[in-house]
Amino acid sequence: MGLKVYGLPLSTNTVRVLALLKEKDLDYELVPVDLPTGAHKQPSFLALNPFGQIPVLEDGDIVLFDSRGINRYIASKYKETGPDLLWSAGGPAESAAVEVWLSLESQQFAPPIEELVFEALIKPIIGQITDPTAVEKHAEKLGKVLDVYEAHLAKNKYLAGREFTLADLNHMPYAYYLMKTSKADLVTCRPHVLAWWEDISARPAWKKTAASIPL
Amino acid sequence: MGLKVYGLPLSTNTVRVLALLKEKDLDYELVPVDLPTGAHKQPSFLALNPFGQIPVLEDGDIVLFDSRGINRYIASKYKETGPDLLWSAGGPAESAAVEVWLSLESQQFAPPIEELVFEALIKPIIGQITDPTAVEKHAEKLGKVLDVYEAHLAKNKYLAGREFTLADLNHMPYAYYLMKTSKADLVTCRPHVLAWWEDISARPAWKKTAASIPL
Repeated sequence: MGLKVYGLPLSTNTVRVLALLKEKDLDYELVPVDLPTGAHKQPSFLALNPFGQIPVLEDGDIVLFDSRGINRYIASKYKETGPDLLWSAGGPAESAAVEVWLSLESQQFAPPIEELVFEALIKPIIGQITDPTAVEKHAEKLGKVLDVYEAHLAKNKYLAGREFTLADLNHMPYAYYLMKTSKADLVTCRPHVLAWWEDISARPAWKKTAASIPL
Repeated sequence: MGLKVYGLPLSTNTVRVLALLKEKDLDYELVPVDLPTGAHKQPSFLALNPFGQIPVLEDGDIVLFDSRGINRYIASKYKETGPDLLWSAGGPAESAAVEVWLSLESQQFAPPIEELVFEALIKPIIGQITDPTAVEKHAEKLGKVLDVYEAHLAKNKYLAGREFTLADLNHMPYAYYLMKTSKADLVTCRPHVLAWWEDISARPAWKKTAASIPL
């Protein structure tokens, strides 16, 4: 039984999982979930994920949800397939750095960038009107977070250090969407963040992932 | 060189780390950080954590921040000390469950309970006035999340299944604070969530942790 991802290639959280599967060069089937018709709130989907959200991963009999939990599982179970994105060959310092930056992605980076991307990019797509004041507010918060990233990336090629890891990868879907907004300068005006983004987004696996995002 | 935690026993995020150290029966030194005087925004603290937040863990030369990243690191590096809270002896299904519920804690449980506890419990402590409408709004959101927990815990003793894991532990600081608010019925009216809370909060290590919370 193969890997099956329930989700949509426009969904950042789905893309987080697809990007990892592409890095690992693992075969998978993408099962579209029709959000506009509420397919994610139907009993058949709620039986997979009672929170009614995409993505969901099926790995044989095992069902997982929440993109970060899914990615951790894939990175660990399929450690030997493709690059080891948990940097298991490193010592305690490398493991610590991976843990810190995985956690910072979800706690510091994600909250403001999710709000900013929703306001600036998603609202127009779903027929709502962008609030420029909200965009500025979220951009200011994200800018402060990226100031820390800039100082860190001035001394480290990747977030956890010398190696590209899951900590970098988990940032990519929202960073990609941010670059499509009027606030791309949050990245381009920070030279080390920009160099990091240019490096990781040039990875062959990410190029394939990005090519499938309908935006 | 031993373990050093910079934080405060009133801080839920600090308690998350202390609770794990107690479960592992690891010695540590707690270094208080005087938030009211802004000690966490001084250069000496920012050199440890550029986000200026507690807790920070020093493990010899290794410095980590963000409580969930710290806990993952401790649970992994000190796997053999005390209970293995990552359930490494389990198979892929057990690992998947641990990943799913660790991720759900941070993505589904934490956002509404953090808002609720701040509004109902912390505001009066820091001289602000609780907004009852906000309390109701956050309680309603949290209730929907706990409905999923109730159904899950009806079939599983702990979040990841048969064993107490880090996924349970990471929930404990905010659950403890919630029980001190007028919205404790969010737990007590859900029999399986209540049974889970009574079980995990009766653990000797948690009792020691709770005894040190000045609330």
